[in-house]
Amino acid sequence: MTSTGQAAEVIRWCRQLARFSEDPNAITRTFLSKPMRDVHTALATWMAKIGMSVRIDAAGNLRGVCPARTAQTPASVAPRFYIGSHLDTVPNAGAFDGVLGTVLAIALVERLGARRFAFAIEVVGFSEEEGVRFGAPFLGSRALAGTFDSTLLERTDERGRSVREAIRHFGLDPGRIADAEAPAGALGYLEFHIEQGPVLENLNLPLAVVDVISGQSRAELTFDGVAGHAGTTPMHMRKDALQGAAAWIAEVERLALATPGLVATVGKISVEPGAGNVVPGRATASIDVRHADDQIRTRAAERIVKAGEEIALQRGLKMTWEPRLEQASTAMDDSMVAMLERALEQTGAQRYRMSSGAGHDAMVLAAKMPAGMVFLRCEGGISHHPSENVRDGDVAAALDAGVAFLDELERAHHA
Amino acid sequence: MTSTGQAAEVIRWCRQLARFSEDPNAITRTFLSKPMRDVHTALATWMAKIGMSVRIDAAGNLRGVCPARTAQTPASVAPRFYIGSHLDTVPNAGAFDGVLGTVLAIALVERLGARRFAFAIEVVGFSEEEGVRFGAPFLGSRALAGTFDSTLLERTDERGRSVREAIRHFGLDPGRIADAEAPAGALGYLEFHIEQGPVLENLNLPLAVVDVISGQSRAELTFDGVAGHAGTTPMHMRKDALQGAAAWIAEVERLALATPGLVATVGKISVEPGAGNVVPGRATASIDVRHADDQIRTRAAERIVKAGEEIALQRGLKMTWEPRLEQASTAMDDSMVAMLERALEQTGAQRYRMSSGAGHDAMVLAAKMPAGMVFLRCEGGISHHPSENVRDGDVAAALDAGVAFLDELERAHHA
Repeated sequence: MTSTGQAAEVIRWCRQLARFSEDPNAITRTFLSKPMRDVHTALATWMAKIGMSVRIDAAGNLRGVCPARTAQTPASVAPRFYIGSHLDTVPNAGAFDGVLGTVLAIALVERLGARRFAFAIEVVGFSEEEGVRFGAPFLGSRALAGTFDSTLLERTDERGRSVREAIRHFGLDPGRIADAEAPAGALGYLEFHIEQGPVLENLNLPLAVVDVISGQSRAELTFDGVAGHAGTTPMHMRKDALQGAAAWIAEVERLALATPGLVATVGKISVEPGAGNVVPGRATASIDVRHADDQIRTRAAERIVKAGEEIALQRGLKMTWEPRLEQASTAMDDSMVAMLERALEQTGAQRYRMSSGAGHDAMVLAAKMPAGMVFLRCEGGISHHPSENVRDGDVAAALDAGVAFLDELERAHHA
Repeated sequence: MTSTGQAAEVIRWCRQLARFSEDPNAITRTFLSKPMRDVHTALATWMAKIGMSVRIDAAGNLRGVCPARTAQTPASVAPRFYIGSHLDTVPNAGAFDGVLGTVLAIALVERLGARRFAFAIEVVGFSEEEGVRFGAPFLGSRALAGTFDSTLLERTDERGRSVREAIRHFGLDPGRIADAEAPAGALGYLEFHIEQGPVLENLNLPLAVVDVISGQSRAELTFDGVAGHAGTTPMHMRKDALQGAAAWIAEVERLALATPGLVATVGKISVEPGAGNVVPGRATASIDVRHADDQIRTRAAERIVKAGEEIALQRGLKMTWEPRLEQASTAMDDSMVAMLERALEQTGAQRYRMSSGAGHDAMVLAAKMPAGMVFLRCEGGISHHPSENVRDGDVAAALDAGVAFLDELERAHHA
């Protein structure tokens, strides 16, 4: 099959798998949900058909192995290279976030035909990345990385069912999660994923190599003023908490625009008492700051909080804040980045590096083995939405790059 | 009793009536609720004791009549002067909003002792002003003014009970609401009410005469942008709806500060999708604009909407808006304003006129008869809150001013 024909097949697979959903009117597939089993069955059947040995590990990850050349390296001791992404979705998701990377990995093995390498290839479809069901993300990749904290087993979903019970209910043994860990000496992990942003589309590029996954600072700021009657409190006597918050939101934008590569977002705001005819006495807003460089990020986050304090002071308000998340950036493996760039060039695509503003399984795996990521352009930069879309040609380029990368890896392994 | 002693008594009455509440932990007393009957019983007993004839009209208003001097004018044809305020409250209210004006009216009649005027005095404790239970305010005063639209009877509360049913359930006849209307030739209506704002406290004045009740323009503005991933959407590629709303909120403040006497409030804001890690795709905010001068108000409201449009245009957002309320200002009766000012001066208080930014029963009554209002200073400008408070001395001044006003009215009536 041509890579274009295979790309169309990959997209068909993604759209097909999107039908396995908890919601008949939307794409929603959380950790160990019923439709996840249907996804496993479909993909396992395909993997078995192309000669892979398939299992579901105790964390619910779908794993299929394409063996190494047995002539050169006994299968039992062949080093292993992992390729994958996640199979769970956010509520009302699109068809490609996570799923595309998993399907691409299998298609890559299919493309290899009878070819085998000095290393085994293990495709992983992670059970959980989005953190929807249990409010904790990366449950699948943490198990592979050996960083699955056993206290996670006690977390409960909305219905009060624990992770432990969910695993059991899916027919798996929560006592064997440690067995899901990749053995030492893994060669690395490669993940294809939609960009989830508009950068590649704006540059008219199909693919990018990710060099770093940005760190994040999240916090919640509260502005306290004095609620008052909207008709009887003269403007100059007000301590309007929302006016303080609005001035600060504008300042967040100004600071972020002034710092190359920084993104800062106020995605949530609430006001008390929240009536049209009452001057707000309290406004609470979220802030999410990201940058590939941890120092730039933490300085920017400090400046943003400081700006809130200053605005509050000027307006006779009180500003308090609570940190919500502080996550350092994760560099992708240098030699994998270099190999992926060469692989991209071999397919005729322009070399382009970018940081990832979103977290990914590759970030978790990087603690265990060399990790690398390739972004695919996505239509309108849209993700986590039914209108997620990718182009056949970009998926074909990703497949070509994947083959070229495996060739690179084979050469590096023999060198 | 001295006016100071009587003032303390008035405040005690208000605090006592505050115990009649739908909520054991807060002051909440809506239209025709059970505690409203307790308030009626307590006040009716007091009124009867001081020689007034009491009834509850079909709209649930408590009404007590102090007759005119029968020697001069047969009671049946004596002109009537109304004094009152409302007895319902917002949820989690204070003890004085509305109640103080009703209690003051009865205390004023008590203060008269055996004195009678050429006109009868009717005290009215309106059943409904706040609009809480049925989402429509002024149900009580509309009945007295003869502007109670019969379609109001079909409105339903949260439990699905209609105004008609609520009236019946309270033991009244919804078919007789027309009988609640004040007969033609009423001399006027006077209302004492807490200011609900900080102006008198800032000026260190006990009382003010209201010359006009400000008109109101209310609307809802929606900014539509494009939702995006907070980590992967670079700042310059965003169409952040909340950033647009924040810029507009700041502009609302700027415009209001630049227009003397104008108040403009954004009291409500909501954001979609409303997650900390998602660039807002939509922001919806309320706007409430008030001024004593209708032309200034409507021009300001237009400028504010226009500012929203301009900001949206600059940012590639779309702004839409819906008018929610357009209410003209209501002037208080000139001769009543003049008489009230003289009455205030006679008590030694400084003459001070101000507009009311809040709506009041006096606004509704002004359609039927000359209407006047006196504001009492309230602590911290706070209303609609358990910490509402008034000073004994200010209530004493209001009582003195009330007596002086009735003397003025008597003279005017004889002139």
